[in-house]
Amino acid sequence: MKFEDIPTPAVYRLSFYLRQLEAFQRADRHTISSRQLGEALGYTDAQVRKDLAYFGQFGHPGIGYKVDELIGQLRKILGTDKVWNVLLVGAGNLGRALIAYRGFLRKGFRLAAIFDADNTKVGQPFGDLKVESMDNLAQLVSDLNIRLAIVSVPAEAAQNVADRLVAAGIRGILNFAPISVTVPPEVSVQGVDLAVQLEQLSFKMSLTGTESGESPANG
Amino acid sequence: MKFEDIPTPAVYRLSFYLRQLEAFQRADRHTISSRQLGEALGYTDAQVRKDLAYFGQFGHPGIGYKVDELIGQLRKILGTDKVWNVLLVGAGNLGRALIAYRGFLRKGFRLAAIFDADNTKVGQPFGDLKVESMDNLAQLVSDLNIRLAIVSVPAEAAQNVADRLVAAGIRGILNFAPISVTVPPEVSVQGVDLAVQLEQLSFKMSLTGTESGESPANG
Repeated sequence: MKFEDIPTPAVYRLSFYLRQLEAFQRADRHTISSRQLGEALGYTDAQVRKDLAYFGQFGHPGIGYKVDELIGQLRKILGTDKVWNVLLVGAGNLGRALIAYRGFLRKGFRLAAIFDADNTKVGQPFGDLKVESMDNLAQLVSDLNIRLAIVSVPAEAAQNVADRLVAAGIRGILNFAPISVTVPPEVSVQGVDLAVQLEQLSFKMSLTGTESGESPANG
Repeated sequence: MKFEDIPTPAVYRLSFYLRQLEAFQRADRHTISSRQLGEALGYTDAQVRKDLAYFGQFGHPGIGYKVDELIGQLRKILGTDKVWNVLLVGAGNLGRALIAYRGFLRKGFRLAAIFDADNTKVGQPFGDLKVESMDNLAQLVSDLNIRLAIVSVPAEAAQNVADRLVAAGIRGILNFAPISVTVPPEVSVQGVDLAVQLEQLSFKMSLTGTESGESPANG
């Protein structure tokens, strides 16, 4: 099976397996069974074996998975065994929090440049970096060999920013703007609209009948 | 078809349709065709019609969709026609940014209380609210009729926080902690692990051959 044909949810679960394996590694566990890995995440052992089988043969008979080895293999599959330089557009509250958030830019991702369209912000310190003008975008993307961008700008600026990123050579965008952006097929976009997530939750809660007999606040 | 049987991606797209319709509304558009709605989001008109048909019959012959009417109908389906009180646990950088983020707590969601396990933070102002002690959780959840919680705490605190939220009566959790949490079946969890999103992007970029001929930074 080619990677293209693997169901998206299985690729998502790969990230969760990796996260859990890293937790086992921190706890000095050296081997793990599919049942133990599944239990920690609320999946069956059959699910774990099926998911991992999409990507290769990782277990050892009578041992299970070797934690360090499987971590290395999953990082390789997810492309995080190398370090990706990442840029951020939008040096506002959310951008600042994303960068400060422990675990966001973990092993595999390094923040290399920060841009803002607001010229009054250009030159301001932002962690170890300073905010760059959008005029320097193409030059810095090329100089720093950046392929991934995080966009945390207002909705009305998002498409223009995405267009400029694509023109500058960016090939993956993590979009926090509360609107979807259109990009050419060779560019990947991962949308993270926080309000969408809340709406999906409220939809699920309607399904599970949480509302029955008790109405939400009407403030 | 029952709502339970509707594919999750279609429910996601419902949020995007709503977002786009709100943009049309701001631009004083009163009616819209499935083609126009789809074009704005990069979907075919057939996709738009199929998605909306899961939830009801919304179009008008010769007119298309009435923007205000469809917005109201989608909000009702998503459960955001009422105001949900939401609480936040974790008054750190990310929590602060989430609350400050324009568009996150939009119509339909109101931040009603903020909690932190760190007693030195308790009592500090946080927007219009002040940070509450976790000891007051159950009381405030009951008094303020809160069913939804946003969790932005470190990985190691997340499960304990989720357990306490569930015990206090919370039925939906938007989890920003970089680890998955286990909850009873009557509780919904929406995980938003930001590092997972980046990993998914780097996986997709490997698929599209972005790496061929040019290796990512090795810093």
